[in-house]
Amino acid sequence: MQFGAYTFVETRRDPLTGEPVDVDKSFADVLEQIELADRVGLDVFGLGEHHRPDYAVSAPAVALAAAAARTRRIRLTSAVTVLSSDDPVRVYQQFATLDLLSGGRAEIMAGRGSFIESFPLFGYNLEDYDELFAEKLDLLLAIRARPKAVWKGRHRPPLNSQGVYPRALQEPLPVWIASGGTPQSVVRAGMLGLPLAIAIIGGEPARFAPLAELYREAGRRAGVAPDALAIGINGHGFLADTTEAAIDAFFPPYAEVMSRVGRERGWPPLTRAIFDQGRGPAVI
Amino acid sequence: MQFGAYTFVETRRDPLTGEPVDVDKSFADVLEQIELADRVGLDVFGLGEHHRPDYAVSAPAVALAAAAARTRRIRLTSAVTVLSSDDPVRVYQQFATLDLLSGGRAEIMAGRGSFIESFPLFGYNLEDYDELFAEKLDLLLAIRARPKAVWKGRHRPPLNSQGVYPRALQEPLPVWIASGGTPQSVVRAGMLGLPLAIAIIGGEPARFAPLAELYREAGRRAGVAPDALAIGINGHGFLADTTEAAIDAFFPPYAEVMSRVGRERGWPPLTRAIFDQGRGPAVI
Repeated sequence: MQFGAYTFVETRRDPLTGEPVDVDKSFADVLEQIELADRVGLDVFGLGEHHRPDYAVSAPAVALAAAAARTRRIRLTSAVTVLSSDDPVRVYQQFATLDLLSGGRAEIMAGRGSFIESFPLFGYNLEDYDELFAEKLDLLLAIRARPKAVWKGRHRPPLNSQGVYPRALQEPLPVWIASGGTPQSVVRAGMLGLPLAIAIIGGEPARFAPLAELYREAGRRAGVAPDALAIGINGHGFLADTTEAAIDAFFPPYAEVMSRVGRERGWPPLTRAIFDQGRGPAVI
Repeated sequence: MQFGAYTFVETRRDPLTGEPVDVDKSFADVLEQIELADRVGLDVFGLGEHHRPDYAVSAPAVALAAAAARTRRIRLTSAVTVLSSDDPVRVYQQFATLDLLSGGRAEIMAGRGSFIESFPLFGYNLEDYDELFAEKLDLLLAIRARPKAVWKGRHRPPLNSQGVYPRALQEPLPVWIASGGTPQSVVRAGMLGLPLAIAIIGGEPARFAPLAELYREAGRRAGVAPDALAIGINGHGFLADTTEAAIDAFFPPYAEVMSRVGRERGWPPLTRAIFDQGRGPAVI
């Protein structure tokens, strides 16, 4: 079992314009946190890609490279890379560079995206939501396997053995499938023999157990070696001296964020009563 | 006058396969060099984007972010970013992140590309060589000016006020035009009031003086304030105790590289006789 932390680097926003302020301080804080995580022995730290004023990280590999220079052993991952709306060639190049800079500590968590801003921003159609991910993951794995891949798809110009450099130090560079818990993503990860990171943002963890079985079953059917499979859970966490102190400190800002995000997604506001029942908003 | 250094991070290659080896050591070396440059007072350090096994940097902002974490005051730039074959939204996001991580020390040198591997790699047509650059520069400057730009072009999906985050700390994030010395690029930089970096890879520096005049004249005609204009020179340099010692140490590896690159470009081999006359290969 490994233990880590991740963040999207939340930003404070100007109440008048809604634009983020003091984002450089948010980055300085998170670098200090990653340095501490490395020192106290956490296994991994992740930064998640977003394209909205709420969060400062849209280029995870760039921010992780600064963390690489300030740490010695902690693994550094995106949590997640929105692969559907990115170019797998660039993603591989950036994380291979991070891997070389960090002495082989880079990982990619590839996801379809929970927020959807990146689709119009980079000119993709949400109707292609799943096809985009499947195709780009296929390309990413092809590039990871060899410097000069041959590949053809609908959503990215073909590769005809053009070289992709630099090459990662780790062979292979770890690529996880990050999923909000849809059976489709879980089966895909199992069939491809890729490690699976499930985001449990709300809902009881026990509800996700059948997905773990589905993942292992998909791997078995595809003939994947069992030890190639691994499951990670990305969830919210907060520590304090007592449960009550943790809840009292955590609930108000958590409710503010989840209610703000929930307004875009049609969730009901998060009340203390719902929170105390251990039920967050709907699973995304 | 400011003084700096740049590198593409040359790689050693396996003599049998031609693939790069020990690239992590090349990165470790260059980080040490940038740290030293910072300590001894150089003003700027640049890393150049390439997509070939000879050079390790294809993602300059990622490598520069590691350098940012190890330095205090030196400015960090791409030298160059091949803007023609990249997405200005991603380029802005990566360098804005670098700017935030470095306390406002990021710069972009945008160029059309000297090597041409990136065009087929990212699905662009070399026939659009100049149009691609003009269009993408226009978009980069629009994004730099405001978070929610409205923009339409031929080579990238339109922007309809989607937000581009995070925002750089510097306002504006410095964008230089990097040119191999074509009058077209020089005039473009002058008209837009952008600083100009001229690469003098071969040939006598005096031959480039008319370009400086052309740049200033283009700025004057466009009504640009003279102090908005600045000229940088990117060239090869090598220091030793005496001129003779410098030439003896520098010439053999320099000739090897220039002859290798020259074979792809139809240059004659670089001989010591030509070198001693102060004439390198043709201007690119």
